[in-house]
Amino acid sequence: MKKNVKAEIISIGTELLRGEITDTNAVYIASQLPLIGIELQRITTSGDDIKKLAQIIRQSLSRSSVIITTGGLGPTQDDLTREAIALVLEEELFTDTDLVKELKAQFIRMGREMPPSNLQQAMRIPSAASLPNPRGTAPGWWVETNGKVIAVMPGPPREMLPMWQNEVLPRLKTRFPVDVIQARTIKTFSMQEARVGELVQPYFEAANPTLGIYAKPDGIQVRLIAKGSDAAHLLDITEKGIKEKLAPYVWGTDNDTLEGVVGQALSHRGLTLATMEQFTGGLLGHIISNSTLSLRFYRGGVIVNSDLADTGLGFPVTDGVTGAVAEAMAQSIKDRFSTDIGLSITGVDCQRVASNQSDVVYIGVADALGTKSWTQQFMINRSDSVERAAVSALFRLRERLIENKQMDYVK
Amino acid sequence: MKKNVKAEIISIGTELLRGEITDTNAVYIASQLPLIGIELQRITTSGDDIKKLAQIIRQSLSRSSVIITTGGLGPTQDDLTREAIALVLEEELFTDTDLVKELKAQFIRMGREMPPSNLQQAMRIPSAASLPNPRGTAPGWWVETNGKVIAVMPGPPREMLPMWQNEVLPRLKTRFPVDVIQARTIKTFSMQEARVGELVQPYFEAANPTLGIYAKPDGIQVRLIAKGSDAAHLLDITEKGIKEKLAPYVWGTDNDTLEGVVGQALSHRGLTLATMEQFTGGLLGHIISNSTLSLRFYRGGVIVNSDLADTGLGFPVTDGVTGAVAEAMAQSIKDRFSTDIGLSITGVDCQRVASNQSDVVYIGVADALGTKSWTQQFMINRSDSVERAAVSALFRLRERLIENKQMDYVK
Repeated sequence: MKKNVKAEIISIGTELLRGEITDTNAVYIASQLPLIGIELQRITTSGDDIKKLAQIIRQSLSRSSVIITTGGLGPTQDDLTREAIALVLEEELFTDTDLVKELKAQFIRMGREMPPSNLQQAMRIPSAASLPNPRGTAPGWWVETNGKVIAVMPGPPREMLPMWQNEVLPRLKTRFPVDVIQARTIKTFSMQEARVGELVQPYFEAANPTLGIYAKPDGIQVRLIAKGSDAAHLLDITEKGIKEKLAPYVWGTDNDTLEGVVGQALSHRGLTLATMEQFTGGLLGHIISNSTLSLRFYRGGVIVNSDLADTGLGFPVTDGVTGAVAEAMAQSIKDRFSTDIGLSITGVDCQRVASNQSDVVYIGVADALGTKSWTQQFMINRSDSVERAAVSALFRLRERLIENKQMDYVK
Repeated sequence: MKKNVKAEIISIGTELLRGEITDTNAVYIASQLPLIGIELQRITTSGDDIKKLAQIIRQSLSRSSVIITTGGLGPTQDDLTREAIALVLEEELFTDTDLVKELKAQFIRMGREMPPSNLQQAMRIPSAASLPNPRGTAPGWWVETNGKVIAVMPGPPREMLPMWQNEVLPRLKTRFPVDVIQARTIKTFSMQEARVGELVQPYFEAANPTLGIYAKPDGIQVRLIAKGSDAAHLLDITEKGIKEKLAPYVWGTDNDTLEGVVGQALSHRGLTLATMEQFTGGLLGHIISNSTLSLRFYRGGVIVNSDLADTGLGFPVTDGVTGAVAEAMAQSIKDRFSTDIGLSITGVDCQRVASNQSDVVYIGVADALGTKSWTQQFMINRSDSVERAAVSALFRLRERLIENKQMDYVK
C-alpha cells in the first residue's frame, strides 16, 4: 500500500479567533480526507493578517503536499488569502477579465450593480486555476506549485460545500490517485458510545478496514474505511460482523436517516402518519417534514404547549404525563387527521418544573393493531433532551413497524 | 492602554484530525479570551504525535505569552500532551504522590479499582501546578515558564469547561490583569451583512470600543468590546449611535432571543398565541416553545404537510400558496385555539416542485385588529430557508405588535 499523501487545513478569519463562529468547514473536510486516502496532519486557524497568514502557508507547504484553505476570499480589505498566497509563491496578482465578466453577470442575475470592491474577487495568480462558486461571488483557486497543491475555498459553508464536492474533491482524486478506498457507516440508536466501543473492540485491531466511532444526535455511528482491491469484500465481512453484534440497535447505513428509513417503509405500504407533540414543541414534525418523501406519508400534526384541554380541538383532558396519555394522544391525532398511524410525545421537563430530576418523556403509537407506549429519561440539558426525544419517537415507531411486520430489521 | 497579551490554543487529538468530533472547546475559549483582554492569534489542531506536538508547542511559545491546550491527558499510550510539554521545557516527569492518592480516592468513590494505566495521569513536571478535575481522572496543569503560561486542560468539554471557569480563567485574570473590559451585542434581522457593515463603518475606526459583525441564523449581530475605566460609558454612547443607524431592524441586545422579546411583550399583556405552519413543518413552534416563558403565552399549533383540506380539522380548502391563504390560516388557528393572536407560515419549496426558482414564503398574522401578511423569497438551500422563514415569522409578529402599540422598538 502506498504511503498516505499528507495534508493541512488552514481556516482563515478573525471571527474564528474571536469564537464568533464554529469552524464547521474544517471538521467536514477532515472527515472527507480519509475517504480519498489523504492524511490530515494539522489544522491551523488564523486571523486575517497577511504576515501571519503567509508564514502559516509557507510552513504548511514545507510539511505537506496538500494545503486546503477556507475563508478570506470576500470583497473587503480584510480578505487577504489571495494576497498571502501570492506573497508566499512570489507571484503577481492580476485581474482575470473572464472572471470580471462572470462576476458582473452574476450581479446582474441578482438584480444589483457590482460594487467596485468586488473586483478583487476576480484577481488571481498565474499558477491558480479559478474554481466556480455558484452560491457566492468568491471564486476558489486550485494552485499547483512544485508538486504541491493549494486548494482555496470561501468560508461560508454553503459556498464551500458545493465547491468541495464539485471542484476540489474530484481534482484531489485525480491528482493523488489511491488504491480503492471505500467507506461504510453503520448507524445505531439507543446504545451508549462506550458499549458500542466494547462490542466492536475486536475489529479495532485490524489494520484494514480501520474503524471510527462517532456520537451524533441520531445515535452512535461506526465508520469503516477499507483500502485495496478487496476493499468492498472486507467492508462486507466487517459490516456483517458488526451488525450481528449491534442488532437490533442498527437502523441504517451510510446516508440513511431515521426519518428516511421509517418514511420509506410507510410510503412503500401506503401508510399515513400524523403527530402530536408536547415537550418537543414541533421538532418531531420538523424532522419528519424535512425530507421530500414526507409529502407521501406525513399529513401533519398538532403542537401542544399547555393543558391539552385548552387546545379547543377536543383532545382529551388529562391530569398528568403518563404512558396512557401518550397513547390517548396518538389515538386522538390518528382519528383527527384520519391517518393510519398516530405518533405522540409528551414529557415532563425537569427544568420547567424546577426540580432537580431528569426529563421524563413518554412516546405513544396508535395504529390498526392498537396503541403502545414507551418511557425514557434524559439526564441532559433541555435542548439535547428535546432532540433525543424526537429521534426516540422515530426509533420507537420503527420498532412498532417491525413488530407489526410492516418493516424489516437492517440486515 | 496596555498592549494585548497574545495567546494560542492547541487542540490535541487524532480524532479531531479525522473529523470525528467538532472542536467546541477552541471556539468556546476563543469567545472568552477577548473578555479578559487576551488576544488569540492562532488555533492549531494536532494529532497525538509527540514530535509534531512538541514542535507546535515550541513554536507557539516563541510567539505567544499564553498557550492553552486541550486534550491528550487520558490514561492511554496515545495521550502524550504531558510528555510533549516535558520535552519542550526539558523537564523530567515525576509521579506526584499526592495526585496518586487523589486519583485512587476518586476511583474508590466511583466504586472501581484504579487501572495501572491511570498512574500516568498523576505525573507532572516541577514547573507545573496541578489543576483539579472534578469530572474526570485527568488533572490539568498550570505551567509558568520564562514569563509565559501554559494552561493544560482535558479534551472532553464537560471536564474542560469547569476547569476553565474555576481554575484557568481566574488564574489568567490574576496573572495578566487588564483594564475593565465590557462587551455588548446588538442584534438585528432583515438586513444584509454588507449593509450593516456600511452603516456602522464610522464606528470601526475607533480603537475603543472595537467592533465585530457576525452573521447568525437569527440575523446580523454587532458586538462591541470596550476597555478602560469608562468602558461602560463608551459602550452606551456607541450602542446608542449604532441603534439609531440600524433601527428599526434592531430587535434586542446581548442574550435576548427573538422568541424571548416577542414572548415578553405577549406575556406582559396577557396575550396568547397559536401557530399554523406549512413549509416549516413545526420549526416555528419548536423555536417558540424552547423558552420557559412560552408556557405563559404559547398554546400550541398545527403542522400541515399536505393539502390543507385534508387535515380533518376543518381548515379552509385552498388552491395555492398566497398571502390571503397565510391570513386565512392565521385567523383559523386563532379561532381554533381561542388565542388572541394567530401566526402562520405557508410556502412553496422550490426543490419540492422541482423548479429552479427561489423558495417563496408567506407569513400571516391575525389579531384583534384584523389580518396582515408578508412575503419573502429565499435563494438558499431548503434547511436555511426553513430556518429563515421561522425567524422571519417571529420578526413580522414583532413588527405587528409594534404597529399595534403592544410592544416598543428597542431603544
